[in-house]
Amino acid sequence: MARALRLAERGAYTTRPNPMVGCVIAREGEIVGEGWHVKAGEPHAEILALQAAGERARGATAYVTLEPCAHTGRTGPCADALAAAGVARVVAAMRDPFPQVDGAGFDRLRAAGVAVVQSGLMEAQARRLIRGFLSRFERGRPWVRVKLATSLDGRTAMANGDSRWISGEASRRDVMRWRARAGAILTGAGTVLADDPSLTVRFGDDTPFEPPLRVVLDPGLATVARGHVREGGAPTLYIQTADAKPPRDLDVQRAVAPAVGSSFDLRAVLELLAQRGINEVHVEAGATLAGAFLAAGLADEVLLYVAPVLLGDRARPLFGGLGIDAMAQRLRLEIVDVRAIGEDQRLLLQPAAR
Amino acid sequence: MARALRLAERGAYTTRPNPMVGCVIAREGEIVGEGWHVKAGEPHAEILALQAAGERARGATAYVTLEPCAHTGRTGPCADALAAAGVARVVAAMRDPFPQVDGAGFDRLRAAGVAVVQSGLMEAQARRLIRGFLSRFERGRPWVRVKLATSLDGRTAMANGDSRWISGEASRRDVMRWRARAGAILTGAGTVLADDPSLTVRFGDDTPFEPPLRVVLDPGLATVARGHVREGGAPTLYIQTADAKPPRDLDVQRAVAPAVGSSFDLRAVLELLAQRGINEVHVEAGATLAGAFLAAGLADEVLLYVAPVLLGDRARPLFGGLGIDAMAQRLRLEIVDVRAIGEDQRLLLQPAAR
Repeated sequence: MARALRLAERGAYTTRPNPMVGCVIAREGEIVGEGWHVKAGEPHAEILALQAAGERARGATAYVTLEPCAHTGRTGPCADALAAAGVARVVAAMRDPFPQVDGAGFDRLRAAGVAVVQSGLMEAQARRLIRGFLSRFERGRPWVRVKLATSLDGRTAMANGDSRWISGEASRRDVMRWRARAGAILTGAGTVLADDPSLTVRFGDDTPFEPPLRVVLDPGLATVARGHVREGGAPTLYIQTADAKPPRDLDVQRAVAPAVGSSFDLRAVLELLAQRGINEVHVEAGATLAGAFLAAGLADEVLLYVAPVLLGDRARPLFGGLGIDAMAQRLRLEIVDVRAIGEDQRLLLQPAAR
Repeated sequence: MARALRLAERGAYTTRPNPMVGCVIAREGEIVGEGWHVKAGEPHAEILALQAAGERARGATAYVTLEPCAHTGRTGPCADALAAAGVARVVAAMRDPFPQVDGAGFDRLRAAGVAVVQSGLMEAQARRLIRGFLSRFERGRPWVRVKLATSLDGRTAMANGDSRWISGEASRRDVMRWRARAGAILTGAGTVLADDPSLTVRFGDDTPFEPPLRVVLDPGLATVARGHVREGGAPTLYIQTADAKPPRDLDVQRAVAPAVGSSFDLRAVLELLAQRGINEVHVEAGATLAGAFLAAGLADEVLLYVAPVLLGDRARPLFGGLGIDAMAQRLRLEIVDVRAIGEDQRLLLQPAAR
């Protein structure tokens, strides 16, 4: 199963909106076939593993990171294919919450005489792997990661807005991997005006990836006429309030979300993105919008690059609008992962259970 | 030599103002005696190792982390003792910069027919071990460590001054070890007024230590009449400006240092402490004083406990008065060590070469 999970991860930049899935077929202690889901519309992990195994799949055990599908989408049901190939036993790390599967894959296998082991083997890892996909079906909103680069003294930009570059080159390269695995990269109009980022994935090599949707929260469509975020090989979606007046002849994707004043209802924004098949949202914004996600309890994780520099107390803060006045109101996080990225420290944090 | 360095470290809380020294005597690949300097006025490492070795010291090699002394202080010259015991060879990690030694120990050994190996074996580690002692003789000022506890967003206290507790219990215990190895724990009048800290070493067990001198920078002697920092089993020194008016019948140690307005000349303060035999100063102060040490280039290392919490942008900053307005002015640090202390991260940083 560990091998299947590693295989699944190879699809991180390309399977969207589908989940990553890996499959290993083993017989008598030997791997006879393996595969992973590469891209929506292309064969599932099980099919590729069966193709690799051929006749050796007969009587074998298939280890899959997710329940095999039971429905005919752009490809036929994997449950049927496994049964037809003579696989004797299927061990799945977890059930698929996708409404057209959700146990039906297991039923179908059993009905065809295949033994099903739903042991929860490495289920935590399997769930973590596809946390965005799960979030979309279980919570109706994508998994949200807020990425920030900060100095040791918690500053993200100089008073004049200059933020290039706090983190090192290695960190900026690392960010590309996190962008690439997200279905959407979200920012605010303020960041578009201040930094004019392109928010594309630039790997510098030929690693394949599906360009994530760029999402700009721009209540009044103030930034819609220009900016790098409109250019390049990735789609862009502007989210506006109902009464925003778009410039004439505007040729951009737009969607309306509810707002109070100029502050969007972020939960509604996320629901809108989930409806568009976005599993994971990667937020790269300023202190105000980043703080708003945190304050609303909508940041599932914070990806923080800490550069070993000091910017002083005139520089801009990491998060705005948290509304904390007393020690008891502090926001607790848990460190999930720490590692050195070049000269910086990268912390992955999640809000602690209260 | 690695063993000698580890032995030396056992004296970290007790040898002051002397340096930590370790000694291992080996003959035919076997350790026949070892020792470390425990306390000023008591036998040096070499003497203890010779006592342990007895007759087996004859023809042996002594590994010492610092050049053996050549002068008679409260104890006789170690160089003579090594020669008298018949030690054939002395391997020293480094020369002793103490004016009464400074090569004279090696000369004395050679004159007595003992081979001296000044190979620089593990010299970097040996220097690091006694960096405070070296700083005092080589730079005329103690090694300065600035300790701070901060939230992830670089805040050290709430707007109302409340700072209890940002860091976890494990971090607060860890701080005790750093306090104990310092000759002085330095703070400002502002911290005494706001937090009323005792600044003592509290191990919670019977680990022996010499209580470090508590130093309060209090230009006008405003805090001198009360406070936990005056109490308990450790000496306290108030540093004042020349024109401060002490309260009548005041029974505290005082020293005068030059200041501009209410800001002390920190270099002069440090020189004053070096003259009093302080090797290492541990600064536990607020953003202003901590920032002043950094801005003056007088912070040799920053010990930063980062708690996984957010305090928001109304809370107090980590460092004040750095005077940074543009990215090019940022203060660069190097991460020397990172580790998890309970739920916190502990970073040891040094200013990067500019």
